[in-house]
Amino acid sequence: MATTRQAPNRLRPGRTAGSPHNRDAILTAAKQEFAAHGFDLATVRGVARRAKVDPALIYHYFGSKNELFSEVIRLPVGPREFALQVVAGPTKSVGERLARHALELWNAHPPAWIELVHSVTSRQEAVSPRIVLDTITKALGVPQPRLRASLVYSQIIGLALAKFAIGIEPISSVTDEELVAFYAPTLQRHLTGHLPGD
Amino acid sequence: MATTRQAPNRLRPGRTAGSPHNRDAILTAAKQEFAAHGFDLATVRGVARRAKVDPALIYHYFGSKNELFSEVIRLPVGPREFALQVVAGPTKSVGERLARHALELWNAHPPAWIELVHSVTSRQEAVSPRIVLDTITKALGVPQPRLRASLVYSQIIGLALAKFAIGIEPISSVTDEELVAFYAPTLQRHLTGHLPGD
Repeated sequence: MATTRQAPNRLRPGRTAGSPHNRDAILTAAKQEFAAHGFDLATVRGVARRAKVDPALIYHYFGSKNELFSEVIRLPVGPREFALQVVAGPTKSVGERLARHALELWNAHPPAWIELVHSVTSRQEAVSPRIVLDTITKALGVPQPRLRASLVYSQIIGLALAKFAIGIEPISSVTDEELVAFYAPTLQRHLTGHLPGD
Repeated sequence: MATTRQAPNRLRPGRTAGSPHNRDAILTAAKQEFAAHGFDLATVRGVARRAKVDPALIYHYFGSKNELFSEVIRLPVGPREFALQVVAGPTKSVGERLARHALELWNAHPPAWIELVHSVTSRQEAVSPRIVLDTITKALGVPQPRLRASLVYSQIIGLALAKFAIGIEPISSVTDEELVAFYAPTLQRHLTGHLPGD
């Protein structure tokens, strides 16, 4: 492997700098660090502590905190594939499927909601959710697809923040099935309901 | 006035340190600074530059960036009064009134949406919006008032972020009347619609 090199002496013993094990340990630690502190307060030093490696090794692999985050937020499925899973099925329950798939994704892959939180502090739309929602509204063939994707974005990000980042009660303590029941009609309306201008 | 004192030499000439004019200028500058950079990236130095005063004067008046922010986010009307204005009128249009009053408030008083953004990075609920929404759901006498207030919070914060902090298109460029039309039914449903568990 081109990136494998001898571990410098200051790295802790027992792990080889270039081993895939180290790289995976760093990614796992980074997910925990970003989930615990959010993007802005997370530090490479904190990731290094969790992964029990030297911070220099993280810079060696990933270059910067930004690039480490880009690696961590990669979805387990691509955003278009995710969107098409949501669209597959009756249109009248697409809002319910979106709520359920989003909650499953956030639980299984915290960087997905961390990306949404980071979009607030960085004042830029999160890339993957935008692709997901634009793909969904285009596949549905509804009028004003970009507006609808934006309305859904505004509710999805609010749910993610309320549940995970801020911990608003009782949203953060009810079951996901209850959340699906509460949010499905809102998402359904934003996606397929009549909007002024249709 | 007890807080009036001789301006130190390093303050720019032409303004007296303790004058109410200076205090107002600092508050106006702070609103601009927080609106431009959000709470976390805003600096006392930046406020001082905008207000054309020495940073020391800001610490003299307000003690810290946190306390300056607490001063700046004070609503033009108290949260309970704001809530009762929203409730006053037919219950079937309370969602519409909430959307309209919120947008008017955010436009007239940017610290109100900045507080919502800051609640994300500080990972704590914003105090005033919570009081507003709890007061509204209690006054309406609906079942599950706390849950409903939380659901509304999650949509209101998403709208504020989409429109002001992130600038999601087309949300940030359509008129407020259009936004009221898009969001009123969602807020109405969260506030008064049937929820599982009612």
